[in-house]
Amino acid sequence: MKELSGLGLQFNGERVLILDQQALPEEEIWLDATHPERMIDAIKNLKVRGAPLIGVAAALSLACFAQQAPDDLQVSQAAEQLRQARPTAVNLMWAIDRMLQSMANGGRTLLIAEAVAIFEEDVLLCERMANWGAALIEDGDGILTHCNTGGLATVGIGTALGVIRKAWEQGKKITVYVDETRPLLQGARLTAWELQTLGIPYVLQTDSMAAIQMQQGRIQKVFVGADRIAANGDFANKVGTYSLAIAAAYHRIPFYTVAPYSTVDLQCADGTQIEIEQRGAEEVRGAAGWFGAVRWSPAEANVFNPSFDVTPCGLVKGLVMDRGIIEQSRLQSGALREILQEK
Amino acid sequence: MKELSGLGLQFNGERVLILDQQALPEEEIWLDATHPERMIDAIKNLKVRGAPLIGVAAALSLACFAQQAPDDLQVSQAAEQLRQARPTAVNLMWAIDRMLQSMANGGRTLLIAEAVAIFEEDVLLCERMANWGAALIEDGDGILTHCNTGGLATVGIGTALGVIRKAWEQGKKITVYVDETRPLLQGARLTAWELQTLGIPYVLQTDSMAAIQMQQGRIQKVFVGADRIAANGDFANKVGTYSLAIAAAYHRIPFYTVAPYSTVDLQCADGTQIEIEQRGAEEVRGAAGWFGAVRWSPAEANVFNPSFDVTPCGLVKGLVMDRGIIEQSRLQSGALREILQEK
Repeated sequence: MKELSGLGLQFNGERVLILDQQALPEEEIWLDATHPERMIDAIKNLKVRGAPLIGVAAALSLACFAQQAPDDLQVSQAAEQLRQARPTAVNLMWAIDRMLQSMANGGRTLLIAEAVAIFEEDVLLCERMANWGAALIEDGDGILTHCNTGGLATVGIGTALGVIRKAWEQGKKITVYVDETRPLLQGARLTAWELQTLGIPYVLQTDSMAAIQMQQGRIQKVFVGADRIAANGDFANKVGTYSLAIAAAYHRIPFYTVAPYSTVDLQCADGTQIEIEQRGAEEVRGAAGWFGAVRWSPAEANVFNPSFDVTPCGLVKGLVMDRGIIEQSRLQSGALREILQEK
Repeated sequence: MKELSGLGLQFNGERVLILDQQALPEEEIWLDATHPERMIDAIKNLKVRGAPLIGVAAALSLACFAQQAPDDLQVSQAAEQLRQARPTAVNLMWAIDRMLQSMANGGRTLLIAEAVAIFEEDVLLCERMANWGAALIEDGDGILTHCNTGGLATVGIGTALGVIRKAWEQGKKITVYVDETRPLLQGARLTAWELQTLGIPYVLQTDSMAAIQMQQGRIQKVFVGADRIAANGDFANKVGTYSLAIAAAYHRIPFYTVAPYSTVDLQCADGTQIEIEQRGAEEVRGAAGWFGAVRWSPAEANVFNPSFDVTPCGLVKGLVMDRGIIEQSRLQSGALREILQEK
């Protein structure tokens, strides 16, 4: 079979390699995460991250495991463990469900082909979202983004950052304002690295500086990704997104969420039903990365550390999906349920 | 003369010692900053920080210098250099002006007494603000604060954190939600240390998590300090304050600014006239403290790093000053100018 290669993931038919995102931007280290145990470890430690990328990576790992597993039960058990590595990531659930369905329909040997199909679909979905979203960007725009939603979050060109990249490739002169994205610094470490690599002009700022950039007129649009979208358009994304959405609404700046349809969870009627993970206190007491781990607050400090927050649809101008842009009013009147149920 | 002692400053009549705030919370290191050159270095490197504390520290340093200076001109030159160490800090300007006026009126030998008077006034002003502000806090409140405005920012019990401490000492059971305050982490390093030392329950969070705490109903009031207040009540404070004020307004949570009258700059009619310093890029590319300096973003990253932002008075419920609480409507109708001009 042909090799599959994304910015953060490689698959040669037998081994799944992931680019260690905790080592970026200083070092590019590829890790073998073929075995589900290693993939789970990589997901939990954010060596591989980004909702779509996690889904594809877990599917490939499960497919490889299935080739040598003695029976379907073991594959199902591995699938459950992969799910638990990141319970908020709906793409992960979606990818695992699809793999298990494929196994039920045609047996374990089909799983490699199914995982490859998921990979190739992600590339295509990114391309479609990028084309829809880039049409919203005008020459000269300042674009604010949060976290990392690019080629390190997907196996394609990305969701929100894919939109931005596409606009740049279309020749639009834009400047990207990158929130560092505390506590895990995906903006400072990963988005800055991607934009630097691509040669797209960007400005790095702390998360709390987004509002002043808006006040001073530098931001014309905000594009962010999503980890889970409820049926009414409320969505969970990296913590800090909600704060940005409030600031954008206050300044009347259009705020767009970019995500493939696999991010929608119709089981959640609205955002109150989205479960939010609490992560470890050490992440907020300091920071960690290629330089090691440092702590700057008292060692005993009580900490609040939700990995996501939920932004109500009322703050969103539109949702950029692979099938097109759904405006706020259509989201609120149930468009997501209609579109997905007719699929 | 008697010794003067604050949480972050000591003066024995001849030497000015400052607690190195860059070494907290891990180590308590006292530095001699008697000579203006050392004080300027300490202010620029944020070893001594907090608008009121800087004013008192600079006055004491200038007073000591004046005792051995050959003429008034040298004292005036040192005064100008001290001013330039932190041009946005209006308390610094105010303290230096007052020292120069005192020298003009009565000669260099009076400056020690004048600096001591400034010190003692600060203690008294903090106490008054704390009493006014604490009356706004109810038993069971969750209080959000940003940056450090306590005993390390003043020579008294603080401004916003002084209010919180006073409410706690009055027996009100409160929880303090502490923004870490990127990029310099005054919340994580200093406010957390003060609250830990005082035994007041607190929760540390990244700046971007304030909005989700509000959404989940944990925050009943926000108290912040101010570095400069314009005549109409617009004010400059640590970057991130503006974003908080927008989020508080969105959630209809009362937002209070706590500052002494010396923070008001009637030369600025409104917030657009407040000059904002840009600080070095390294502060945003990583972090520094007792652990050294680390960088997590690309070394070449372009950075936006204003030390302050400006919050319009329209987002503020009231200004807690030493003379009482001035509500938003009175601020907007010119109360600050009236009060200060009748002084």
